[in-house]
Amino acid sequence: MLKGKVEGVEAGAVMANVKIKIEAPDIITAIITKDSVQDLDIKVGDAVVAIIKSTEVMVGKE
Amino acid sequence: MLKGKVEGVEAGAVMANVKIKIEAPDIITAIITKDSVQDLDIKVGDAVVAIIKSTEVMVGKE
Amino acid sequence: MLKGKVEGVEAGAVMANVKIKIEAPDIITAIITKDSVQDLDIKVGDAVVAIIKSTEVMVGKE
Amino acid sequence: MLKGKVEGVEAGAVMANVKIKIEAPDIITAIITKDSVQDLDIKVGDAVVAIIKSTEVMVGKE
Amino acid sequence: MLKGKVEGVEAGAVMANVKIKIEAPDIITAIITKDSVQDLDIKVGDAVVAIIKSTEVMVGKE
Amino acid sequence: MLKGKVEGVEAGAVMANVKIKIEAPDIITAIITKDSVQDLDIKVGDAVVAIIKSTEVMVGKE
Repeated sequence: MLKGKVEGVEAGAVMANVKIKIEAPDIITAIITKDSVQDLDIKVGDAVVAIIKSTEVMVGKE
Repeated sequence: MLKGKVEGVEAGAVMANVKIKIEAPDIITAIITKDSVQDLDIKVGDAVVAIIKSTEVMVGKE
Repeated sequence: MLKGKVEGVEAGAVMANVKIKIEAPDIITAIITKDSVQDLDIKVGDAVVAIIKSTEVMVGKE
Repeated sequence: MLKGKVEGVEAGAVMANVKIKIEAPDIITAIITKDSVQDLDIKVGDAVVAIIKSTEVMVGKE
Repeated sequence: MLKGKVEGVEAGAVMANVKIKIEAPDIITAIITKDSVQDLDIKVGDAVVAIIKSTEVMVGKE
Repeated sequence: MLKGKVEGVEAGAVMANVKIKIEAPDIITAIITKDSVQDLDIKVGDAVVAIIKSTEVMVGKE
């Protein structure tokens, strides 16, 4: 759960595109295969990118 | 795509849990239903949370 | 796989929103992290909610 | 969001399998392609199945 | 990651449908429950189908 | 739905990794944002890659 601020909303007939600016540092958990960890040689301290398809992101208000 | 640093890696037999610290501010796009935008009354400037299941997050190195 | 009846269909240019009424009791399996089970203290008999993003739901006819 | 009761919990090293019994009737929304609606000829009143991969289901307590 | 060629693009207001022809043989990895492997009796050499919801597919150019 | 043959199965306590060899040419549909189509300039005939997280792939037998 990443806190942010809405930067843009664009609605179509069924779906809408919401752009959210994440400001505060936060921890995200990724569950990937053990094979990927080995293939990419992922270790503590590595610089990585978290890739998330926009259709997978839910939006809530607290 | 959010840039971060690996804070922890914990592997099982098949899957692994990778914790990533997101440091820099970044924009994330959420594709949700038009109905949700209306139900939650999402507008530019609103404080929101982006909710992402950990199994949906991919990890890459650049 | 949950059996249901279509309550509404609303199509846009590319996507469509299908509302399905689930009537019969059924079992759903959730695969979550061991950490979440511990953080939420999930035990047999607990009342919980299963949260599913609408974009993740496929529809079939038997 | 479907309300239910935990029927089983089985944890591995990283992931856990949680079986949830959904009891009350409820509405679930599926976002599918307009093409699928046409191919399957989905109309109000049709008997359908909602297919959800177990890794997509999140669990919460209220 | 499956290599292919774009066969069709159809855009709406927010989303787009991209049809990709996969030509070369390739390996795809599926992470499913151990229970499903047992229920379906999945063994090396079996003919199977990989089922992927279209909203889960990302598209890239190399 | 891509037809293939199981090349490997590796089970842990909860999850299993199933490797599937896709042999026949096939069409896969990707639902992405209109923005991505424009940013990547996706047109009919383009060589692209379909990227699918392994946790999103379901396996069936016909």
